[in-house]
Amino acid sequence: MSTMVSLAVFPLDKGESVSPYVARVVRLIRESGLPHVLGPMGTVIEGGTKEVMDLVLRCFEDLERDCDRVYMVLTADYRKGGEGRIEKKVRSVLDKL
Amino acid sequence: MSTMVSLAVFPLDKGESVSPYVARVVRLIRESGLPHVLGPMGTVIEGGTKEVMDLVLRCFEDLERDCDRVYMVLTADYRKGGEGRIEKKVRSVLDKL
Amino acid sequence: MSTMVSLAVFPLDKGESVSPYVARVVRLIRESGLPHVLGPMGTVIEGGTKEVMDLVLRCFEDLERDCDRVYMVLTADYRKGGEGRIEKKVRSVLDKL
Amino acid sequence: MSTMVSLAVFPLDKGESVSPYVARVVRLIRESGLPHVLGPMGTVIEGGTKEVMDLVLRCFEDLERDCDRVYMVLTADYRKGGEGRIEKKVRSVLDKL
Repeated sequence: MSTMVSLAVFPLDKGESVSPYVARVVRLIRESGLPHVLGPMGTVIEGGTKEVMDLVLRCFEDLERDCDRVYMVLTADYRKGGEGRIEKKVRSVLDKL
Repeated sequence: MSTMVSLAVFPLDKGESVSPYVARVVRLIRESGLPHVLGPMGTVIEGGTKEVMDLVLRCFEDLERDCDRVYMVLTADYRKGGEGRIEKKVRSVLDKL
Repeated sequence: MSTMVSLAVFPLDKGESVSPYVARVVRLIRESGLPHVLGPMGTVIEGGTKEVMDLVLRCFEDLERDCDRVYMVLTADYRKGGEGRIEKKVRSVLDKL
Repeated sequence: MSTMVSLAVFPLDKGESVSPYVARVVRLIRESGLPHVLGPMGTVIEGGTKEVMDLVLRCFEDLERDCDRVYMVLTADYRKGGEGRIEKKVRSVLDKL
């Protein structure tokens, strides 16, 4: 069983350059040890549903500490019996091109 | 402090009519006692970050029980010092029209 | 045929109070004459795919005029043969509770 | 000026394996000639706002042709004066780790 999430989370009260805050979030994701892929619009993480959602909560609460407004967009995709989908999903599409 | 989330969660393996599954999710939201508003594209819920995210996890895991693939779109908006924003936010926009 | 979209669009460079910008977007939506519902996390609009997407583009470009950074979250749901879904979808869920 | 979008679009009435439909969408994105990055949860595309949104509309309408229900999640990020952000954004975060 595998859940993949795509996570984008950033402050709304710190002006238009939010990369220092995004870097803090990425550090938390790395420390989790879960497979992940950094992208230009968000980070994809794979794991069990509960462990992935716990990590998402930790990232969000980390920004709450010193931001007055925080926005998040999360998409999640659970598939029974799947695993290693963070790599397989792209390959499965490329094979059909 | 208040976090609002907009939650849409549904199975991908049950055909195009997913309202029975959405109804199960709405029942869990109601039982939580948290302020919420049903909309045509998702449900908005307000509460503390952790209690809202715990509820989201419960909804997602409820569909995992009998669905082979589950998809979720979640947006979250935290604002320090805010509360009752589920009503105030719309009014604040209407006042400016 | 009907497409519903849920639209949230706002600047990232104007501080944490973005309701004046959201109000401008809502005015454009109203002027379009398309059925819509204002919610605390976004506005749901129903129409033909092309007319709804043209409106979304107009809203986004309106903020580009005086904002240096603009963020948007859009979800869309097309259903063949559907119409008036902006009302029916909620009722269809409530009937199953 | 640059707008990046993250696009996920798929049918809800074709069962849990949607990669053939995703492949059709990716083919349209490739044919557009716009810079893009395939990811496990969606494809990021960069371009002018109008050209990117026109492409998104084309992808959505392509699935409408033979799908009875189509779902889309789109996030967009416009930044004045930016360009080549599809590569720079990730590097800018990595530099801060």
